[in-house]
Amino acid sequence: MSIAFRTIGVVRTDSSDLPRHWSISDVEGTLVLNDGLADGLRDIEPGQQIVVLFHFDRSPAFGPDDLRQVAGDTGMVTGVFSTCSPIRPNAIGFSILEVTGVRESTVNVRGLDMLDGTPILDIKPHVERRP
Amino acid sequence: MSIAFRTIGVVRTDSSDLPRHWSISDVEGTLVLNDGLADGLRDIEPGQQIVVLFHFDRSPAFGPDDLRQVAGDTGMVTGVFSTCSPIRPNAIGFSILEVTGVRESTVNVRGLDMLDGTPILDIKPHVERRP
Repeated sequence: MSIAFRTIGVVRTDSSDLPRHWSISDVEGTLVLNDGLADGLRDIEPGQQIVVLFHFDRSPAFGPDDLRQVAGDTGMVTGVFSTCSPIRPNAIGFSILEVTGVRESTVNVRGLDMLDGTPILDIKPHVERRP
Repeated sequence: MSIAFRTIGVVRTDSSDLPRHWSISDVEGTLVLNDGLADGLRDIEPGQQIVVLFHFDRSPAFGPDDLRQVAGDTGMVTGVFSTCSPIRPNAIGFSILEVTGVRESTVNVRGLDMLDGTPILDIKPHVERRP
């Protein structure tokens, strides 16, 4: 079954030296949401961590040979669902970023592992499992 | 811009008494992936936590009036990107679940907040930010 989603905005960053993963990134940039969505950003504040879902728009298409891949962090052949590889059945990325500022429909963030121009699909609060 | 994703499997659970959020759920169930994806589940093991992306397939369509909503946990009017509401610009859900077993193309999990039949979009490892 195919499901259509729409881009809600785009990632902007001057950096072209992006780390492999948000968990080891200090790269700064901006999430620029489409016009009309600013009201949805109310209550996002500097210092918070947010979950950002995005489209790996420049990744090669996934095929059966990609079910096992060499993982970037370990160098070991690993099932795709145990990796953060951008080559996956659905090319959806997930990063946890630190908010450094919010203004109208833009959110300044730290911790980017997305390329400049990456389409954004959603922003969610970062919630921890209860102890 | 519209982006098409495909269902990679479906959530199965006997429970109809689902909590509002995975972070407060002990509900058990199974992620049943489509044929041909089992190799991607290698390396997922009981005791691990996994990130599951899914489609809120039974939620009402999002409209401009939904940019601010009453949040389920606080009862306060909150910007949609600070809530876990299923009514959002892209109806993509995100849960962190505990793996209790893996067999062929199925993963037994604890912590469900998805309805029986929910379409699955992706499974990813749960990674913490470096300290």
